[in-house]
Formats: sequence, structure tokens, C-alpha cells
Amino acid sequence: MDYIHTVQYYETDKMGITHHSNYIRWMEEARVDFLSQIGWDYARLEDMGIISPVLSVTCDYKKTTTFSDQVFISVSVKEFKGVKLHLAYEMRNKEGNVVCIGTSSHAFLDPEGKPVRMKKEYPELFDTLSNLVIDTAELLHPVNEVRHFLTDER
Amino acid sequence: MDYIHTVQYYETDKMGITHHSNYIRWMEEARVDFLSQIGWDYARLEDMGIISPVLSVTCDYKKTTTFSDQVFISVSVKEFKGVKLHLAYEMRNKEGNVVCIGTSSHAFLDPEGKPVRMKKEYPELFDTLSNLVIDTAELLHPVNEVRHFLTDER
Amino acid sequence: MDYIHTVQYYETDKMGITHHSNYIRWMEEARVDFLSQIGWDYARLEDMGIISPVLSVTCDYKKTTTFSDQVFISVSVKEFKGVKLHLAYEMRNKEGNVVCIGTSSHAFLDPEGKPVRMKKEYPELFDTLSNLVIDTAELLHPVNEVRHFLTDER
Amino acid sequence: MDYIHTVQYYETDKMGITHHSNYIRWMEEARVDFLSQIGWDYARLEDMGIISPVLSVTCDYKKTTTFSDQVFISVSVKEFKGVKLHLAYEMRNKEGNVVCIGTSSHAFLDPEGKPVRMKKEYPELFDTLSNLVIDTAELLHPVNEVRHFLTDER
Repeated sequence: MDYIHTVQYYETDKMGITHHSNYIRWMEEARVDFLSQIGWDYARLEDMGIISPVLSVTCDYKKTTTFSDQVFISVSVKEFKGVKLHLAYEMRNKEGNVVCIGTSSHAFLDPEGKPVRMKKEYPELFDTLSNLVIDTAELLHPVNEVRHFLTDER
Repeated sequence: MDYIHTVQYYETDKMGITHHSNYIRWMEEARVDFLSQIGWDYARLEDMGIISPVLSVTCDYKKTTTFSDQVFISVSVKEFKGVKLHLAYEMRNKEGNVVCIGTSSHAFLDPEGKPVRMKKEYPELFDTLSNLVIDTAELLHPVNEVRHFLTDER
Repeated sequence: MDYIHTVQYYETDKMGITHHSNYIRWMEEARVDFLSQIGWDYARLEDMGIISPVLSVTCDYKKTTTFSDQVFISVSVKEFKGVKLHLAYEMRNKEGNVVCIGTSSHAFLDPEGKPVRMKKEYPELFDTLSNLVIDTAELLHPVNEVRHFLTDER
Repeated sequence: MDYIHTVQYYETDKMGITHHSNYIRWMEEARVDFLSQIGWDYARLEDMGIISPVLSVTCDYKKTTTFSDQVFISVSVKEFKGVKLHLAYEMRNKEGNVVCIGTSSHAFLDPEGKPVRMKKEYPELFDTLSNLVIDTAELLHPVNEVRHFLTDER
């Protein structure tokens, strides 16, 4: 399910490595692929009149990559309560080492620039994104979940 | 009157030089500056409902440039008869050596995608561009012009 | 064998279409893929100490593309006599319509910046590229080939 | 002293605004200009054998910008103790409104990829950067400084 980006020559810089700004673009590529995988093509969202501007991004560079490297990008939903979507990205190289950790936050606006009332207007999309938060939490903290379960048992 | 572009680090590639695709972008920067200099901001053209898609580009790379180099770009009108605008670009480094020669062709369309009848609808812009073709010819071939003049004298 | 590029959101511009400069970058993507397909990874060429700067590019835009479109790019060798490699590109959309026609020319240099004597130093690469010129000609002009054949028959 | 970037057409996207990834590139442009202003051209640092990879970036988008807008970028040193340089960026439009707030962190490495011992090896650069931290703090919190002073008085 990871999105794979192959580093292009034009994405390198004179240091001989991938220029750092490109990881922000790969986050977009992976995000678009992620939306497509969960059944909500971004092109379809735009056709529905929803635009989703980026509110913020962060990027922590762990290892360098360079021309012809394959970068495997996983996307997860960190938080979503109906207004702002918070995503997290983990990028790994072929050896499985993390090369970059990123986050991005997004709003959903109608053509007039007003926030979409997602839960009311697009309940299906709301449910899909909301459910992914839970799944992600389970995925990331299986041990904590189990511990919590045990605690509840008492 | 030359447009000056300073090469950015993110425009270099792992060969240590400016990636060739960026010269196409600098041609756009210089073109926008050129239109502004002759009194026709591209932003203003768009506000008037004119869009001007690029029909073709060519680029001959003569010398490499790299990070922090200043590139001096001159724009001239090669041909304009009302429909297609043909521009030529000459890029020089600080030493005055030509680093790149380029051309681009453009159409002028209305919001429906139909060609603008420039001479009729925007006679001022038509005149400005048409006159620049002549001026450019004079500028580029002053010797030929003089020779031609002398020939005509006889 | 076509190289497929999916148009990214960051490759579009405010006209709503793919910015023209990106096709130059896709030509590089397709070229790198082409070299890989014929057994000469560009990364491998660089490891061998060969660098291959771009001498010139041309691009004729036939139809617009935009976000999420798939572009199918075929690469062919137009001419190669040992020093300069001339490539041609044809880009089509999903409907099979040509969206862009491009060309690029390349040199092969050693680390000192001197032209590689390909035929002598890398006869295998020389043969591979030389043979592709013929194959391409056949592929592009089957009718002419047949006609030529008939002419020769007499 | 602000660095001014004029938004290019190729920096916009189909939403009609500047694509968010470009602000990361402008931070680099402003950083290079900043280093030049304090007497340490990045090109000169590279000639001295110092490379300065980006460790992390953050970007908070406050207002959109678009083609032909001028963006005024101020750079300040948030923290520097000799190893990692932490910079902050404030970007404003012509009306003086903040359009983006960013940060970046950088290491200084020698050609072998080892951290440069700045204080020992380049005391002048160390002093310049260290002194800028103090100046920046004073600049950003003049009111707090005064209030703090008054409190201490009692």
C-alpha cells in the first residue's frame, strides 16, 4: 500500500543528494495516492467543489537519498474531527531505513472558501477519514492498546 | 533592460550545474518581465481575460551555469502578425558569454479558448508587439540595416 | 515499453493545466527509463565516469494535460554516430492523442569534460545506440521502407 | 534587509495560488541571501569545504499568495550553540500581512561528512552566528524585555 517514488535526476542538487524541498512534493504525491486508495480521488473531490489547501507541513530529514533511489512512503491519519485533517508520513529507502518523517495539515473548503461541514455534507468521507484515525492508532500502538485492554479488565 | 536571474541552489543538480529544465522557467521569468517593461503585465492580460499558452520552446545550451551565478536574459520579438508571438532569448553570464539561446511561441486565447483577434480587439497591444519586431531587427542587425540603406541609396 | 508519467498537482499552474516546463523534465524521466530498458542505467554510466550533459531540447505542445492525467512517453534514437545522441519523444494521453513532441541532444563526456570516444572506449554502448537508430527508422517509416524495398527490386 | 521574492507563474498551481512547496525553496533563497548579508556567502562556505545539509523544516501557511505577488522574507537566528543552526522565517505580502511562518535547522559538515567544530575551526563564523541569536531575541521581544526589566527592578 506504500506509495513508491523513484528519485529523478532533476530532483538532485549540487550536493549530490535529493534537494530537501522535493520531499514536500512527494508527501503530496503520496497523499493523492492515499486518497485514491481509500476511494476519494483528489480530482473527484475537486469536481465535487471541495478544495483542500495545505495549512502546514513539517519534514525531518533522517538520511539522504539520491538519483534513482526508490522511496517508500506510508501515509497515516493522525487526527481528524471534521475540520482539519492531520496526516503523518514515513519515508523509507529500499533497505527499510527511515529517510524522512513528515506531517501535513489540511482544511476542506467550498468554492467560496468557507470550511466544508464535512460530517453533515459529506458523511461518507467523514466516516472514512474518522475511521482511519482509529485504525492508525491501533497500528502504531498495538502494545499500548493491549495494555489498556488489560487495565480495563480489572 | 536585461532580466537578471540568480541561480538558486535548488536549481542545480548532482552534476554540479544548473539543471537544464530551469532555463525554460527563466525564459518565462524574462518574458513576464519583458511584457511588464512594454506596459503589458501578464497579470493584467489575465485580468482582461486573455490567456497565452506556450505552443513550443527550444533551448540550446552553450555553457554551464551554477549556484549563485547571475544570468542576464534579453528578450526580443522574432515575429508577430497578430496570432502567434515568436520570442527569442539570449542568456549571458557575468563575463558576457552566451550560456543559452532559446525561443518560445505563444497564442493568445479568450476564456473560451478561441484565438483573440488581437488587431481588432486589442489594437494597442497589437501595435506594441508589431513595432517591437521591427525594433528588434534593427537592434540585432545594425550593420545589415546600414548596408541595406546604402544599397537602397544607389 | 512506453514510460508512463502521472501528472502531479505541483506540476499544474494557475491556468489549470500542466506547466510547460515539466515536459522537459518528463523527457528526462523517459530517457532515464529508456537507458535502463536497453541495459545502460544512467546511474551506471555515471559510476563508469561518463556524464551526459543536455546540449539542446525542443518541445512542441499539441494538447494540454492536467492533474492526474497519465502521459505515455515513447523515446526513439533519431541519430547517433558516436559523439552526439539525438533523441525524439512522443507523448500521448490515455485516449492516444499526441500531447507533446520533443527532442533532445546529448554529449558523452569523461570526468575531465572531454568527449568520450564511444566507439573505441565503450563499443558495446556504441553498438546498442547505433542499432537503435536503424530500428527506430524502421518502426517510424514502415511504408517508406516497403516502398524503398520495392524500388530496389526493380 | 528583507529578501524579496516575486512569485513566478511556474510556482502557481491549478488552485490559482502559489504551490505550498515553493515556500520551502524561498526559505533557501532567503537563507542564502542572509548568509551573504552577514558576510558568509554559501558559495564561499562550500569553497571552504563546508556543506550545510538541511535537518528539518516547518512551514505554517497563513495567507495565500499568487503570480506576480512580492513576498518579503525576514530571516532570524533562533538558536546556535556551535553545532546546529536553527533559523526562523517570516514572510509578508506587500500589505504587511504575514503569509507564512517557517523554520529550518542545519548542520555544518566537512567533506567527510563529519560535523565541523565551528567554535574551534571557524571562530569568526561562530561568533557572527552566535551574536545574531542575541540580536534576534532583542529584536523580537522588546516589550517583554522591558517588562522583565521592570519586574526585576522591584
